[in-house]
Amino acid sequence: MANLEHESILLAHGGGGSLTRLLIEGTFVKTFSNRILNELGDSAVIESPGRQLAFTTDSYVVKPLFFKGGDIGKLAVCGTVNDLAMAGARPLYISLSLIIEEGFLVKRLHAIMDSIKVAASEANVIVVTGDTKVVERGAADELFINTSGIGALSDGISLGAKQVRVGDTILLNGSLAEHGISVLSQRGEYGFEANIASDVAPLAGMVQSILAVAPNIHFMRDLTRGGLAAALNELAVSAGIAIEVDEQSIPIRKEVLAACNMLGLDPLHVANEGKCIVVCAEDCDEKVLEAMRRHEYGKDAVRIGRIIEHKKSIVIGRTPIGGKRIIDMPSGRLLPRIC
Amino acid sequence: MANLEHESILLAHGGGGSLTRLLIEGTFVKTFSNRILNELGDSAVIESPGRQLAFTTDSYVVKPLFFKGGDIGKLAVCGTVNDLAMAGARPLYISLSLIIEEGFLVKRLHAIMDSIKVAASEANVIVVTGDTKVVERGAADELFINTSGIGALSDGISLGAKQVRVGDTILLNGSLAEHGISVLSQRGEYGFEANIASDVAPLAGMVQSILAVAPNIHFMRDLTRGGLAAALNELAVSAGIAIEVDEQSIPIRKEVLAACNMLGLDPLHVANEGKCIVVCAEDCDEKVLEAMRRHEYGKDAVRIGRIIEHKKSIVIGRTPIGGKRIIDMPSGRLLPRIC
Repeated sequence: MANLEHESILLAHGGGGSLTRLLIEGTFVKTFSNRILNELGDSAVIESPGRQLAFTTDSYVVKPLFFKGGDIGKLAVCGTVNDLAMAGARPLYISLSLIIEEGFLVKRLHAIMDSIKVAASEANVIVVTGDTKVVERGAADELFINTSGIGALSDGISLGAKQVRVGDTILLNGSLAEHGISVLSQRGEYGFEANIASDVAPLAGMVQSILAVAPNIHFMRDLTRGGLAAALNELAVSAGIAIEVDEQSIPIRKEVLAACNMLGLDPLHVANEGKCIVVCAEDCDEKVLEAMRRHEYGKDAVRIGRIIEHKKSIVIGRTPIGGKRIIDMPSGRLLPRIC
Repeated sequence: MANLEHESILLAHGGGGSLTRLLIEGTFVKTFSNRILNELGDSAVIESPGRQLAFTTDSYVVKPLFFKGGDIGKLAVCGTVNDLAMAGARPLYISLSLIIEEGFLVKRLHAIMDSIKVAASEANVIVVTGDTKVVERGAADELFINTSGIGALSDGISLGAKQVRVGDTILLNGSLAEHGISVLSQRGEYGFEANIASDVAPLAGMVQSILAVAPNIHFMRDLTRGGLAAALNELAVSAGIAIEVDEQSIPIRKEVLAACNMLGLDPLHVANEGKCIVVCAEDCDEKVLEAMRRHEYGKDAVRIGRIIEHKKSIVIGRTPIGGKRIIDMPSGRLLPRIC
């Protein structure tokens, strides 16, 4: 098996010649070796998993690359797997494309590839195709990753904002804002260092458990950039409904809330990478909640609100002291390079 | 339809809030509007085109973004379409993921999106899902694009290095090195400005014409990074065969050759973005050549060599004056950011 001889990535590793071959064999093939990938063709040839597919893409530019609870590699796998899962699909295949800054340490690249391998294995997806580009020093910040994914949609699964009805329950699988606060606190620019781990996790297993007991749920979305507030506001607009949230019901860990307060951030605006909302008819919310709670990544699942009738597509928060506030779409001060 | 109000991209356009929504609606939805994309779900839901799929990914970091004959957008579509076509697949769906440097001009982004639209339309693929990330000034060089693609493989098509046999003919669809020289000459660092256009083009139409008359061709590969030399050397190693190339038969335009000589580059090492080799049995090479020549992007197609028996997996060039040389895998001086 080829090993990378160099300590750091050279421009020539991206040139398409023998060093590129060495880079691909020393990282992709070495780490992910499987029958489909090893062909190293221009495309991977895969079996179609069914009549309907889910297809998604995301680029990851998180800074720093390594943070408590994960790294850019784990994030890239989980983010793409979760996007497939939110469509109700069973994730199967992912692609992996790297943009590497000249000088990047090979040992860090190996660490990230190993992390991708572990995450892909947990999420039950295989890396079937990839690409590497190298840019000169200063033309990219260390490493950017794109993962695209293909998943299988079972017949009869139809999720989307259009399925959402007045009276539906909104469920959340756990506590908020941990990814964003973890990454920010480790960036060293914000004058604090909280010992908070990112919640980054692949949710496909939990979603499959939900669909097994309730194939007729209406909508799911993971709460990444823009957090719960963005997801709820987008749902309200897309579905043409309003949402009422019981703010007291939303789990937020004490130290996360403290960090948010210190930074002047609304925890509902902060990114998560292992959290999602599930919207279903009220008469099946109990069994969905039970299915979520049986799963590692849903053990703290709770009801947080419901779809209500209202003349505007808004999100209303009921505050702990009984008042109401509008939960707005985040717009102004936002957090770059969180994912 | 939403318009981007700002003249340049702000960090907040990548934050996941209302500006991100505006960016997505003002670029993706505005340019590519289609039923699948417009759902703006976490994943696109697509019909599977058959039992077997081709799946590919590529990130594009070309510098400069705009060059004679194309731009990063056209390149991203053609590169991914060609990777699908080289597997014998009919390209259908592509994803589009942007990493944008803060301050990037919105009008340049629109120009690139329009170029993607034109290229996708010519290649008969639709953009069904996407992603945008914004990084701070200096963290990326203007714009990087990832496109991943899905294509349909017909039953009975089986291309790959393993199909290649001694005696097979190697065909090439036109003249070499135009993409690489075009991009280099417009980078302004090399002290010359040649009026050479990139050959960037989607080859899927030509490939479908070839497969229609000769579904039993053995192998195809597009000649991107590392050029013809890298493609032939990789084939020789993968197939465990040797290759003899008649160098005089390889079309290279005079001004391209002059630029290569000036830069000290072997034109066989320089990247193309609309050229490929086709390897087929000798007894069907005439009809494949005819099919290629009937197509706009294959009108200059020629036989350039054959698969030969040899104890080593090497590529031998027969020079114009009757000598022989080894055509090596490019390794040393390579050209960064050409694609």
